[in-house]
Amino acid sequence: MVAQMNEEGTMPTISAERPVVTLINVFDVEPERQQDLVELLVEATDKTMRHLPGFVSASIHQSLDARRVANYAQWRSTEDFKRMLQNPEAQDHMNRATKVASAEPNLYHVVSVHE
Amino acid sequence: MVAQMNEEGTMPTISAERPVVTLINVFDVEPERQQDLVELLVEATDKTMRHLPGFVSASIHQSLDARRVANYAQWRSTEDFKRMLQNPEAQDHMNRATKVASAEPNLYHVVSVHE
Repeated sequence: MVAQMNEEGTMPTISAERPVVTLINVFDVEPERQQDLVELLVEATDKTMRHLPGFVSASIHQSLDARRVANYAQWRSTEDFKRMLQNPEAQDHMNRATKVASAEPNLYHVVSVHE
Repeated sequence: MVAQMNEEGTMPTISAERPVVTLINVFDVEPERQQDLVELLVEATDKTMRHLPGFVSASIHQSLDARRVANYAQWRSTEDFKRMLQNPEAQDHMNRATKVASAEPNLYHVVSVHE
């Protein structure tokens, strides 16, 4: 799987100063379906999510124990995120994901960053 | 809560190319304890974690519904992460956190980034 960068070659950054909301969605998945779920989320992001208003970034993670997939996604605002939830194409992708895994999506603000 | 930046003022970045392991630890917490847990994790990171070998970054997130806190942390390697788990000071901080919240820590690799 290759990282998709935008034209400037930048990467998502994490900052408590940046006015974004962060979706952290952790999926529980059977190890033999982990790769399918990764591909499904990559396709959903590439075909639909990234074209929707307010999309900032999405980073798909696979757990080393093969039992989880996590999506760390940034949206411009809670309103943009909620509008995405109403989008029929996005709903179709989300329904396909929840057929192979149980999702635990939550919205967050970054409060403290340490390096 | 103010973002802690390093001397160069950089921010954690997410990349599938970067050789780090990512800990995503989602804590379930009673809303009235959310702020305590955030402060506990900030203190643990500041006093102990960031001084340990292989620490790259930690970003503390609080959920908008007040029922979750998430730590998105990057370590140089799984070995460094496991060594941290054996550190008595780190164990002390983790024990204090699990007294106020249930933790769900998992290690990940970033597989795909979209902007």
